[in-house]
Amino acid sequence: MSHLYKHLRIHQVFGANTDVGKTVLTTALARVSTVKGHKVFYLKPVSTGAPQDADDEHIKRFGGPRRSAIETKSLFRYDDPVSPHLAAKMPSAEGRVVPTDETFVNSIADYVRRCASEPSYAHMYVETAGGVHSPTLSGTTQTDAYRPLFLPTVLIGDSKLGGISSTISSYESLLLRGYIIDAILLFRDEYYRNYEYLAPFFAEKGVHVSSINSPPSRHSDPEEDRAATENYYASLASPESHDGVLGVLSHLDDCHKRRIEELDSMPRRTLDSIWWPFVQHGLVKQEKDVTVIDSAWSDFFSIYDAGNRQTESSSSSRLQPQLDGSASWWTQALGHAHPSLTLAAAEAAGRYGHVMFPQSSHLPALKLAERLVKDGPGKGWASRAFFSDNGSTGMEVALKMALRAFCISNGIAAEDRTRRNLGIIGLKGSYHGDTIGAMDACEGGVYTCEWHEEKGYWFDSPTIGVCDGKVTVQVPSPILETAKDLPGTTFASLSEAYDVNSRLESPLAGVYRRHIVSALQRLSEIEDIRLAALVLEPLVMGAGGMIFVDPLFQRVMVDVVRDPQLTGGSQGSSALPVIFDEVFIGFYRLGFNSACPVLGVNPDISVNAKILTGGLIPLAVTLATEDIFNAFKSSTKTDALLHGHSYTAHPMGCAVANATLDMVNKLGESDLWTEAREQWRAFQGVPNEAPNPLWSMWDPHFLESVSRLPCVREAMALGTVLAFKLEDNDAGYASHLAQIKLQALKESVQSSTLSAAPGGAPFGIHYRTLGNVAYFMTSLNTERKTVAAVEDRIWSALNTQ
Amino acid sequence: MSHLYKHLRIHQVFGANTDVGKTVLTTALARVSTVKGHKVFYLKPVSTGAPQDADDEHIKRFGGPRRSAIETKSLFRYDDPVSPHLAAKMPSAEGRVVPTDETFVNSIADYVRRCASEPSYAHMYVETAGGVHSPTLSGTTQTDAYRPLFLPTVLIGDSKLGGISSTISSYESLLLRGYIIDAILLFRDEYYRNYEYLAPFFAEKGVHVSSINSPPSRHSDPEEDRAATENYYASLASPESHDGVLGVLSHLDDCHKRRIEELDSMPRRTLDSIWWPFVQHGLVKQEKDVTVIDSAWSDFFSIYDAGNRQTESSSSSRLQPQLDGSASWWTQALGHAHPSLTLAAAEAAGRYGHVMFPQSSHLPALKLAERLVKDGPGKGWASRAFFSDNGSTGMEVALKMALRAFCISNGIAAEDRTRRNLGIIGLKGSYHGDTIGAMDACEGGVYTCEWHEEKGYWFDSPTIGVCDGKVTVQVPSPILETAKDLPGTTFASLSEAYDVNSRLESPLAGVYRRHIVSALQRLSEIEDIRLAALVLEPLVMGAGGMIFVDPLFQRVMVDVVRDPQLTGGSQGSSALPVIFDEVFIGFYRLGFNSACPVLGVNPDISVNAKILTGGLIPLAVTLATEDIFNAFKSSTKTDALLHGHSYTAHPMGCAVANATLDMVNKLGESDLWTEAREQWRAFQGVPNEAPNPLWSMWDPHFLESVSRLPCVREAMALGTVLAFKLEDNDAGYASHLAQIKLQALKESVQSSTLSAAPGGAPFGIHYRTLGNVAYFMTSLNTERKTVAAVEDRIWSALNTQ
Repeated sequence: MSHLYKHLRIHQVFGANTDVGKTVLTTALARVSTVKGHKVFYLKPVSTGAPQDADDEHIKRFGGPRRSAIETKSLFRYDDPVSPHLAAKMPSAEGRVVPTDETFVNSIADYVRRCASEPSYAHMYVETAGGVHSPTLSGTTQTDAYRPLFLPTVLIGDSKLGGISSTISSYESLLLRGYIIDAILLFRDEYYRNYEYLAPFFAEKGVHVSSINSPPSRHSDPEEDRAATENYYASLASPESHDGVLGVLSHLDDCHKRRIEELDSMPRRTLDSIWWPFVQHGLVKQEKDVTVIDSAWSDFFSIYDAGNRQTESSSSSRLQPQLDGSASWWTQALGHAHPSLTLAAAEAAGRYGHVMFPQSSHLPALKLAERLVKDGPGKGWASRAFFSDNGSTGMEVALKMALRAFCISNGIAAEDRTRRNLGIIGLKGSYHGDTIGAMDACEGGVYTCEWHEEKGYWFDSPTIGVCDGKVTVQVPSPILETAKDLPGTTFASLSEAYDVNSRLESPLAGVYRRHIVSALQRLSEIEDIRLAALVLEPLVMGAGGMIFVDPLFQRVMVDVVRDPQLTGGSQGSSALPVIFDEVFIGFYRLGFNSACPVLGVNPDISVNAKILTGGLIPLAVTLATEDIFNAFKSSTKTDALLHGHSYTAHPMGCAVANATLDMVNKLGESDLWTEAREQWRAFQGVPNEAPNPLWSMWDPHFLESVSRLPCVREAMALGTVLAFKLEDNDAGYASHLAQIKLQALKESVQSSTLSAAPGGAPFGIHYRTLGNVAYFMTSLNTERKTVAAVEDRIWSALNTQ
Repeated sequence: MSHLYKHLRIHQVFGANTDVGKTVLTTALARVSTVKGHKVFYLKPVSTGAPQDADDEHIKRFGGPRRSAIETKSLFRYDDPVSPHLAAKMPSAEGRVVPTDETFVNSIADYVRRCASEPSYAHMYVETAGGVHSPTLSGTTQTDAYRPLFLPTVLIGDSKLGGISSTISSYESLLLRGYIIDAILLFRDEYYRNYEYLAPFFAEKGVHVSSINSPPSRHSDPEEDRAATENYYASLASPESHDGVLGVLSHLDDCHKRRIEELDSMPRRTLDSIWWPFVQHGLVKQEKDVTVIDSAWSDFFSIYDAGNRQTESSSSSRLQPQLDGSASWWTQALGHAHPSLTLAAAEAAGRYGHVMFPQSSHLPALKLAERLVKDGPGKGWASRAFFSDNGSTGMEVALKMALRAFCISNGIAAEDRTRRNLGIIGLKGSYHGDTIGAMDACEGGVYTCEWHEEKGYWFDSPTIGVCDGKVTVQVPSPILETAKDLPGTTFASLSEAYDVNSRLESPLAGVYRRHIVSALQRLSEIEDIRLAALVLEPLVMGAGGMIFVDPLFQRVMVDVVRDPQLTGGSQGSSALPVIFDEVFIGFYRLGFNSACPVLGVNPDISVNAKILTGGLIPLAVTLATEDIFNAFKSSTKTDALLHGHSYTAHPMGCAVANATLDMVNKLGESDLWTEAREQWRAFQGVPNEAPNPLWSMWDPHFLESVSRLPCVREAMALGTVLAFKLEDNDAGYASHLAQIKLQALKESVQSSTLSAAPGGAPFGIHYRTLGNVAYFMTSLNTERKTVAAVEDRIWSALNTQ
């Protein structure tokens, strides 16, 4: 990940095209750096062509009187004078392994770290090859390949005919990867005068442009050529020079200094102006408690490490990778800053911006609605998509839909005050968001506020997990009250436990059914509660404490509320509408696109968000059946679903969602998932043709081992989620045991080197705890070795206490 | 705006760089078009250099045996062989006016329309100059200058060394403007083999890449050169040719056909899968009632006109500009698809994606929080920024803050059920969003749902407007009950009426004060209502019917609720927290950054959204004082404000907001605003040094004239908003009079030509009506002539009935 040292100012040098003077201008910068008394590291990661023509040779030759202060280095050399991706495949390179992007980036990072270990202030230039998007050895274009290092950038502009265009386009390609662009340099060509256009153009964007005298044209006599070139560099490096190199150098030094000062200032400024969600500010007293995120890439944040601030000459980078071990509140699907999502967002912004949605249509929204309804979580039951901004608003929409449909099918008139007190059937521990309507569909508790008034009845839920190596359903005592004896609650495998259809006739299903029916009948006798909808987070209640609910219980709930004979009793209700809140579990978070096939039933309404947009941008969708839709249809305007947000179905969000779902679909066929599924299949002894086989990104052997640790009460993995409940007497939100226990984990990794992080650096783990539950979450495409590294850390942390 | 004709397939040809073969490949395309029997229009909008070297001459020369089917055209010719932006300023161009971007685009549009008037199926190629970002005559880069036309694009890739990079970067620059890129063509250079890399690279993005044989190298003998060139083109055009030109042609024809088919299909598909916000689907029965938005630019949507579908040979474009006359639900500040906002969004996506926010910090959020608190709507009172996704969630946060602060200062314990029934003081007609908490802070009404239960007391509000040319405050009868006689309610100017501080001692202020105090004292004697906060939409209640409230009344309300002696009575309350919902009015929608200086008081909490992100992406902010913040501060986690959304403070939204606020600040100094302010100042006879002078983008003379029309009861303009209330006995949401009246407006403009629309085409007006109120809204940067054109349309529409 990103490298930042106070005493080593690093810039990567990108070119707006090939042959724009990258090496000449980098040589000038390096030479002027030595004139100012600094040591210089010049790195050319990939060098192609004859060694004597190589850029590092040029720098050695023209580095000036203090050239000994310049250390040049090339990491990968190929003899053919072609683009790196071709050179690596030439006959002359036969037998050499083409480095992967990771090896490539790690090699650069290793060199950077070595340079940073020298104590005096130095400059470093990393010169790329060709243009910004020229492919590197693996074939990945450089802007993407270098991105994990996130080095500040100097762009060498193009001074030739057409160079205005190539300079601006190159800048935009760098911007699309989020690079910090500190300066643009280009030759002062007096005929095309591109610098005259580009300087004010970029000044408006806050980017410094300098034009530098062009080098002399090549002389036919090598000695003369050398002398002219030496004169040229000498003139650029002269302290009296009016040319811009000295000025550029000061500017780059200033940028470096200001960046560090800004990062240093961020914790204090944040504590002074930000009000965080869900954070007790009274407990965040010190600057070091603020996580400063400088950038992010793939599964990792790049975190500014305040701890190094005191040591001026510290040789460890002030930016450190930290694994986003909770997938940034469960949103990340494809890692941070995925270029495909950035491009999808940019394209939609460029085509539409935002356009108002009522009675309108645009392609990103229409395509998204169709795929969600036909091939997505709505497959087989939904006919309509209603867009909003987040899971909470999506749930408010779902509740409005369900309550209206109930009122209509039960003939409850608009003026009937019963409407205001219609209740929800749900589970204890449910969470549907923080707007008050969504809160009212949950039991009261800590996520509460003045106006929150729970409206409904909440069942205790049986849970499922691995205890001491055995897949076990824990049935809470209220359910057992109605059971004569406890039926079988252990299973040969998780897949067996999640095969809900096969369990429908089991004795446990009967226990569940009797319990639910009798509770509902009891409730129907109480006049002031009239239940109007069933609302479930299928399979897992995330915010409630990562509670893995026995899916059979949820299935039986749905079956019961859809049987008016069972629920109605004296009230004579029709079947209740069923809402699935799939905000957390949707789109393979748990290994399934939707919970419907697992539970073997479809809802009437469902809500999706989070992964929907790949972890980039707010968007939620509420899907509904045609019956629900028809409940609002009339010839009277005010019967409509009068709900909307300004940015409803905003094109950027919809376009990003479409790009996400394209990529998620491809993951289904990927080696990563195929291998994980196969590992789980083999571990569980599940036949190939089993329906909905359960699987996880986490190793089943690891899960089993963890479940046997004395400090672990229960462990569970499904899809990208790993959770364990620790032994703790003080359960609930306020519990700190898991936090204390896992502090060991955090500390144990801070000093270790783990190659799973891009750049080969150490990484922390930004995990989450809820009461005595700790959980970790990967993206949908996190590599197996990263997961394995986390498993190792967890294992040792749990074993050290 | 965009042009689309069934019988004229148009492509603009952009180059990945200069000298990549744009003219050669366009010539090949044109020639092959004639071989397939089509008429071809070749347009080179700008031609620089000697006429005999011009690209249109080349095409005429090598157009092949059917060259007479090719019509070539150049619109702007300059003799100097340099970039257009330089050619236009050369001595040889002296005396010629440099065309503005609008003139430029209109000239192209005129030519396109002329070509489209020919009845047979034809192809058209519009060849740009240099690379994608090469500046055109005005200096604007071509990707931006051509954008209003939104023509489908063929990108000519670069086959030379470095060409992979320039091709990809050029593609990305086009994508950032939302262009549809139908194909990439490049020469088949066998040494660099760029096509081998680019074909699979773009295939993954769904873009067709074709490589075409390179032209012969230039022969020294002109005759030989001509013969070789002719042979080359002949070989490309031969039906037996294995080269790609024929294939490209079919592909481009297919793209054109599929685009029209897709647009044709969109209304039906939309009616089948989308559930719109606020729309009664029962009233939308026909495909023609669906507005299909193909793209948008500046103040205009580009709307697919279903009316032309039946006429195969219709010569009017199927895409028509439609003025976004309601600023897309009041969100647009800088017009649609503003490149600066797209780039800001892309940069943040590339640097962070989204990163979780609790206890974290990142620059876009931190910078935004600081500027909102210090220099934005929070200036002078707020200390904290809490981010969420939309106005409704922002208001839920505000309500949670206010209620908690009230409970703490009044010692209402957590378990006290009083908390659930704390009430709001507000105005009738208020609207704060559609989540149930936000709804509960409003009077019941049509924006309602089953769980909605209004919590509070709502005052009738005096309103302000221009009636028959006079600025008049209308005082509702409940307020007059407490007045002995009606004090002065007309004003010399709007600025006088909005000078709240000067009106504080007026008799009307006394009437307001006595009315509010007595109502609150009456309420405090009723036990089951305990008022805990004042919630106002300052100045205008938008959704409630564009109600312009007398600002003095709101000021007096704030003053009263902050005087515990006045409100407390038997309850002994402390001052009530005051919430300003500035979601609609904030950021100069009404000409003021915030209502605070106008009202002369600050709230304790305020909410902003909509314009905050320039009309691009969802984001809201709730600002609060340090006192409110401290109400949640303790050492207990569960005392915190336990509210958050997955994408809280998402970097893209915050970065776009920062870019928006930068540009909005600049507008403050712009000629556009200065002239409008000056016009209003002069019209009102307001002295230069007057505080908070009222102004509008709409002409004050126009406002006055409209207010005198017999069918208009009242008219009003403030900032970007123009509203008029029509004479109508059937007031309320369900009223259709204004709709009927304004249908005339819509129809009257559909067939007229109005140069305000880019491309000089006719435009419709996508205005909104609420009951008997019709309103129009501009962006913050809508040009005066566009506003004037709308004024003309309104004037004639209101006068025709």
